[in-house]
Amino acid sequence: MGAREVGLPERAPAPGGTLPERVTIWEVGPRDGLQNESEIVPVEVKLEFLDRLARVGLPVLEATSFVHPKWVPQLADAEELLAGLHRRDGVRYPVLVPNERGLDRALAAGVAEIAVFASATETFAERNLNSGLDSQFAMFEPVVSRARAEGIAVRGYLSMCFGDPWEGAVPADQVARVGRRLLDLGCAQLSLGDTIGVATPGQVTAVLAALDAAGVGVEALAVHFHDTYGQALANTYAALRHGVSTVDSSAGGLGGCPYAESATGNLATEDLVWMLDGLGIEHGADLDALVATSTWMAERLGRPSPSRVVRALGG
Amino acid sequence: MGAREVGLPERAPAPGGTLPERVTIWEVGPRDGLQNESEIVPVEVKLEFLDRLARVGLPVLEATSFVHPKWVPQLADAEELLAGLHRRDGVRYPVLVPNERGLDRALAAGVAEIAVFASATETFAERNLNSGLDSQFAMFEPVVSRARAEGIAVRGYLSMCFGDPWEGAVPADQVARVGRRLLDLGCAQLSLGDTIGVATPGQVTAVLAALDAAGVGVEALAVHFHDTYGQALANTYAALRHGVSTVDSSAGGLGGCPYAESATGNLATEDLVWMLDGLGIEHGADLDALVATSTWMAERLGRPSPSRVVRALGG
Repeated sequence: MGAREVGLPERAPAPGGTLPERVTIWEVGPRDGLQNESEIVPVEVKLEFLDRLARVGLPVLEATSFVHPKWVPQLADAEELLAGLHRRDGVRYPVLVPNERGLDRALAAGVAEIAVFASATETFAERNLNSGLDSQFAMFEPVVSRARAEGIAVRGYLSMCFGDPWEGAVPADQVARVGRRLLDLGCAQLSLGDTIGVATPGQVTAVLAALDAAGVGVEALAVHFHDTYGQALANTYAALRHGVSTVDSSAGGLGGCPYAESATGNLATEDLVWMLDGLGIEHGADLDALVATSTWMAERLGRPSPSRVVRALGG
Repeated sequence: MGAREVGLPERAPAPGGTLPERVTIWEVGPRDGLQNESEIVPVEVKLEFLDRLARVGLPVLEATSFVHPKWVPQLADAEELLAGLHRRDGVRYPVLVPNERGLDRALAAGVAEIAVFASATETFAERNLNSGLDSQFAMFEPVVSRARAEGIAVRGYLSMCFGDPWEGAVPADQVARVGRRLLDLGCAQLSLGDTIGVATPGQVTAVLAALDAAGVGVEALAVHFHDTYGQALANTYAALRHGVSTVDSSAGGLGGCPYAESATGNLATEDLVWMLDGLGIEHGADLDALVATSTWMAERLGRPSPSRVVRALGG
């Protein structure tokens, strides 16, 4: 019984009327996805992946990262990739920049948009950034101010917004305080990350409410969920109901731990698109072309996509 | 980075305050799960599975089916299973009964609770039940009335409530009309099935609203989602927000197509429990014991569980 035969699900009216009419999908597969692959993907494959994703109709493709190659050898080809990138009209290609050295490289490569990566918790700031929860801002301040002086928009990622492997549950007001500070520094958007995938919808609502109370408007927010415990799409639905209209996802669900069979990492863009279509929320992506792209990429990587939609419709 | 170290997610306050305080998990793994396995599981393994699930703290275990063995050879051992069942106090063991012949067998086996299986669409009623949308009721009427005369509670499953492989999207008022009729026939509960997994949260809300309008109280409803397109938990969250307090799920996500690697079938009980814990909703099940049971069952079946939580915590 071919489920595809039902076509796209019925476009039902928005329950409660609070859902956004349009969502911007922030595609992180080429960066957050491929940086977690054990094998280094050839730059030609990355370029074809990006071009296919652009043709799918996705408006934002996070292309690569200028983290030091010693830490992320998978993306050591950032300069070569950007030099070879076929930039399509209407598509944005932000890159991740960890520090001033990374910004120098990004500027030299002619990027128009960057993202910085902060922690909502003390321990993760110390372990991942060799910094503290407060002192991380000293590292970002010159990056953000120099970028803005160059006319470059900056997104702020905030990781460990819901749970932290060392500290456990993260208080919502702590997330709101650190997130607010990242926006005050000059970031145009704040992406709330559930880095270890433990969040549930009530926590999502609580963090969004705390940000409201801290004076952060929902239009400045994005959500970034991982599907480690299967919660990513339910959490996304809770965020949409709160009015969030930018959602991070990864084509084919790329970005899990490469050591686990059928790794569960980022929310799969296909699963998100299926839900947005069903909710009647515009996004601009073509689901069939997206599934074909993720199927193609899964063949390049030699393992099946963890996306439910790709498994159901692909191949 | 061991995600388990964060423990259970923070018990956040219910957003909107409309969530139920307690959910009854209706565990369908032993029936809906195992009936879809290509290999026939030995009755001793089924009995141990049921006993482990009872010890997990699950209150309802759908034990088996009295469908003709020609159609479901996997459950041909229904009599033997019920004879060997170690019934634990406080646990209900309903069985599926398709027709009067099945009811005779169920009565002879001493069951206290049954479920019948209807279709919300014309085509599925014709194909699966050799009946029509209306005429299926003629088949169920004597089953329900005889069962009730024996003091046996009857649940009504309604399949294809959101999409049908032949008819496409199913109108919400049609689901409400057919569902209402099943309750009027004498069923104590109506379980709304997304048999092919295509539903999205707005459709769930629309169907529940149509049932409201048809005079069906939410306390008579259960939801039964499949995760084919990754939507099951988001749909469950939408149903919980509507006040539904009985949710069907399958331990370890058993019940997908056995021919696909890592099949995606029923909503995994573990993924549901993770969300309920995070939402602070009581359910009575012990997550660690549940994951251990599904890991054990996956070893018996020789393939990994498709549940994200089992993959993250198991083994």
